[in-house]
Amino acid sequence: MAKEIPDIIVGRLPRYLGVLKRMAQEGRQTTSSQELGERLGISAAQIRKDLSQFGEFGKQGTGYSIPYLIENLEAILHVNRVWDMVLVGVGDLGHAIARYQGFSDHGLRTAMIFDNDPKKIGQRVGNFIVQDSAELAEKVRQAGIKIAMITVPASAAQSVANELVKAGVKAILCYAPIVINVPPDVHVQYIDPVIHLQRMTYYLS
Amino acid sequence: MAKEIPDIIVGRLPRYLGVLKRMAQEGRQTTSSQELGERLGISAAQIRKDLSQFGEFGKQGTGYSIPYLIENLEAILHVNRVWDMVLVGVGDLGHAIARYQGFSDHGLRTAMIFDNDPKKIGQRVGNFIVQDSAELAEKVRQAGIKIAMITVPASAAQSVANELVKAGVKAILCYAPIVINVPPDVHVQYIDPVIHLQRMTYYLS
Repeated sequence: MAKEIPDIIVGRLPRYLGVLKRMAQEGRQTTSSQELGERLGISAAQIRKDLSQFGEFGKQGTGYSIPYLIENLEAILHVNRVWDMVLVGVGDLGHAIARYQGFSDHGLRTAMIFDNDPKKIGQRVGNFIVQDSAELAEKVRQAGIKIAMITVPASAAQSVANELVKAGVKAILCYAPIVINVPPDVHVQYIDPVIHLQRMTYYLS
Repeated sequence: MAKEIPDIIVGRLPRYLGVLKRMAQEGRQTTSSQELGERLGISAAQIRKDLSQFGEFGKQGTGYSIPYLIENLEAILHVNRVWDMVLVGVGDLGHAIARYQGFSDHGLRTAMIFDNDPKKIGQRVGNFIVQDSAELAEKVRQAGIKIAMITVPASAAQSVANELVKAGVKAILCYAPIVINVPPDVHVQYIDPVIHLQRMTYYLS
């Protein structure tokens, strides 16, 4: 396996996969780096270069087979299987994510949800019963879950992350507006709308 | 004004600002590129280089004044004022965003929310009454709103974006898992948890 791929390239692969899957839904069979680039706002040369890190997927003149490229990208990203995820924090956003239908086609599945609020524990949210955060580490370890989404307030995010790491989680999607500290073998991604919005206000006047 | 700053650098500034504001909340007065780097997982050299694009903010030996750097970054990002935003789509996620308290300290404010579902129009969500999407373009234009958040289903996102662009919106934060087409003077950022999660499954096995 190619181990030395820069993370910036890895970060673009899910976007390629997403567009390819939408093309497949549209009934399309082949595409080109030009078309992918136009859809994504990335240069065709960049896309060819990124994909060439992983193999020879396109043919000069005929472009890429969409099903073949989807199959390969899913294998590269390890989403040719289903990953169980744990969600911690059932506030407004946690609620929305617990009920989100958009994971299932993408190798991901929310499997358990937790909160520490006695009023929420035992309640039904979407297909889940809210479980007690006090049992988080044990339940997650038993289930062998490797991926977590954190939607607790910023003040609680680090201690939740610590529990998750203890339980064996290796990938955390953090919605709390704070940087969390984890061991080097644990991956963290952040989603904070303020970061995205301020990146755009720079250009407004 | 420095016009030629690469967008990748602009994209890091909100993260610097966020960490600095948390340090200020902790009562801190000064910091260093080393400390910022450790908190953010970015090299100190990168941070110094990024900030030097905009002026001389640090002093050799004493580091950065946190209040001074905050003031400057807020001015650079144009968030030393409050931007009104419109939210379109009051499903689970739209609900969560309409009620989100985390914008107000960051130069941002949700001002109006819209949906096209007759059952939702007129309902109260957080501090807002859901307005009819049929009136979206007119209301947004009248209010002079330049920033929008889209939380409608993927199938509706492009037509909502078209309405927003017609109304004068110049920055769109799109939560729908689709790439939208807008004129070159309109900025778009995407938030899609699948993209972030698949970037991490790459490293899991």
